[in-house]
Amino acid sequence: MKLNIALLPGDGIGPEVVDQAVKVCDAIAKKFNHEINWTKALTGASAIDACGEPYPDETHEVCMAADAVLFGAIGDPKYDNDPKAKVRPEQGLLKMRQKLGLFANVRPTFTFPSLIDNSPLKRERIEGTDLIILRELTGGIYFGERGRKDDGNTAFDTCTYTREEIQRLAKLGFELAMTRGKKLCCVDKANVLESSRLWRETVQAMEKDYPEVTVSYEFVDAVAMRLVQWPNSYDVMITENLFGDILTDEASVISGSMGLMPSASKGVHTSLYEPIHGSYPQAAGKDIANPLATVLSAAMMFEDAFGLKDEAEAIREVVNKSLAAGIVTEDLAGTNKAYKTSEVGNWLAENI
Amino acid sequence: MKLNIALLPGDGIGPEVVDQAVKVCDAIAKKFNHEINWTKALTGASAIDACGEPYPDETHEVCMAADAVLFGAIGDPKYDNDPKAKVRPEQGLLKMRQKLGLFANVRPTFTFPSLIDNSPLKRERIEGTDLIILRELTGGIYFGERGRKDDGNTAFDTCTYTREEIQRLAKLGFELAMTRGKKLCCVDKANVLESSRLWRETVQAMEKDYPEVTVSYEFVDAVAMRLVQWPNSYDVMITENLFGDILTDEASVISGSMGLMPSASKGVHTSLYEPIHGSYPQAAGKDIANPLATVLSAAMMFEDAFGLKDEAEAIREVVNKSLAAGIVTEDLAGTNKAYKTSEVGNWLAENI
Ligand SMILES: [Mg+2]
Ligand SMILES: [Mg+2]
Repeated sequence: MKLNIALLPGDGIGPEVVDQAVKVCDAIAKKFNHEINWTKALTGASAIDACGEPYPDETHEVCMAADAVLFGAIGDPKYDNDPKAKVRPEQGLLKMRQKLGLFANVRPTFTFPSLIDNSPLKRERIEGTDLIILRELTGGIYFGERGRKDDGNTAFDTCTYTREEIQRLAKLGFELAMTRGKKLCCVDKANVLESSRLWRETVQAMEKDYPEVTVSYEFVDAVAMRLVQWPNSYDVMITENLFGDILTDEASVISGSMGLMPSASKGVHTSLYEPIHGSYPQAAGKDIANPLATVLSAAMMFEDAFGLKDEAEAIREVVNKSLAAGIVTEDLAGTNKAYKTSEVGNWLAENI
Repeated sequence: MKLNIALLPGDGIGPEVVDQAVKVCDAIAKKFNHEINWTKALTGASAIDACGEPYPDETHEVCMAADAVLFGAIGDPKYDNDPKAKVRPEQGLLKMRQKLGLFANVRPTFTFPSLIDNSPLKRERIEGTDLIILRELTGGIYFGERGRKDDGNTAFDTCTYTREEIQRLAKLGFELAMTRGKKLCCVDKANVLESSRLWRETVQAMEKDYPEVTVSYEFVDAVAMRLVQWPNSYDVMITENLFGDILTDEASVISGSMGLMPSASKGVHTSLYEPIHGSYPQAAGKDIANPLATVLSAAMMFEDAFGLKDEAEAIREVVNKSLAAGIVTEDLAGTNKAYKTSEVGNWLAENI
């Protein structure tokens, strides 16, 4: 099979971890007799540095022409700490999501038996956790009208949602729940926000189409608590953009294996696969970052974008083998030997 | 000393837990020779049921005439699950905050040595945690313009902040940090939101007035993670209303002693003291709710509103005594005997 994949390494540790995923994918292609055509393109701070624009048109064309996008990370502190910077790396992320129609971020949180004691939570709290958060990605306050008034002394941001945007995301949630535990939790702040009330009434109206799914409605602050207390009580969660940004990150650390968590962003035009971790600029160029989340994102890509389940499973197997063999980067090594990012990638590729 | 205190029991378990705090305060008044004048007033669902309004003018007058307000909890599920309800209990809370000028919610998170193993976090993660979150209460998306367009198919909410609102809250944060560990964390989403950028530049401009305070700026999603990973790395945190709503609730469960956490809301006209837990309607009327958070809120009131430190300390001491003696409600009893809400209150009052 011919696989056209856009490769967007991004900033910070992005290029290093993406390199390892490419090694693993190429090994898979060799083993399963596929032909991968990688097309690299710039995003984020590296794109700003190159051409002043965090998601250049050229990059967009590469993504549109591809069957799937494998993405690293975006972000550079030199822009974060400058409140007057006109262009920010994260604007590239937002623009990319919008132009590719990436409307749903799919974020699993699960545990690896051998790593469960890395969780900040007690074993009995985290054991059995297997949840997926579906975060709406193209609406809400990150994309609404914003600006200043009163000579810059008043700032505003607007959160807007349409019924269609909510239906599109909720549909994915109901369908995903049907393939799993048949529990769906709609997270909102319907006791205060009008947009949340639209979320709630829209999802309530869809319940009749999925009679087997048990739906609960919970406030975002209550969920922020319960994720720490009883994470294994959730199956599929759906929520709007900002709430999802916060909750998916909170969920990512409870397993103790954040460096290993993959994600997908489902798009109208194409889908994108990326690790959930950030650009981790302090580690950039040091060959110490954990590449497994990117490697597991590539596994999600084989399965979701190309329907290649065996290939995905082969990647997950070799990742589990590397964990069992202790071929891990310093974040997982404990008092044992820590391997370099590139060494882990080489080991995985050789053991496919 | 004459203490004029407005008493707002509210909904759910509010009346029960407030009753216990009143017993304790009356015992304190007797011991320390004060005269407390309690004036009761309605809020929330109970006020809607009585007069159709969750924060009636009469209640507001009682609060304005008082030196401090002791508050229970607000909320009733019969309003939450009805997206078309015109008046909601929580609107009373918002209206009260606005009319009393309650602009800062002060939320400590600390551990009780005897209860540390109740935390969902491992002991080594939670030990030594002693942080305070200052949440801005009168601005942001909970108070901005909201509504529907397109025949109800589009909903919007607006987050607005002024430089003055931010300065007022940040000033409290800097001052509080000066009395503690001299570390201040400003929580925002300045990489995306304009209101967050105004927060960041306003706080940055205030740094020079507090040269001893070390200020950090962190994104709300990163803080949602770090609160689970390393809660003891924080001292004082300042943030806007919605972020504070989510983070204070998340912080409340990490100690494992949520039922014991007090809070204060600093006001322009008066200040309000309340437990952080909600109205817990499932337990209402059962005499099983933990009254300690409300009792400890009364301790905060004696110290903050009246400058009565010994009285506050006497309350905290008797609470610690009750914990050590196992005179606790079912949430803390484990396999030991669980006491009723009223029994705990009686024991505390008798042991003052
Ligand atoms: Mg995030
Ligand atoms: Mg809350």
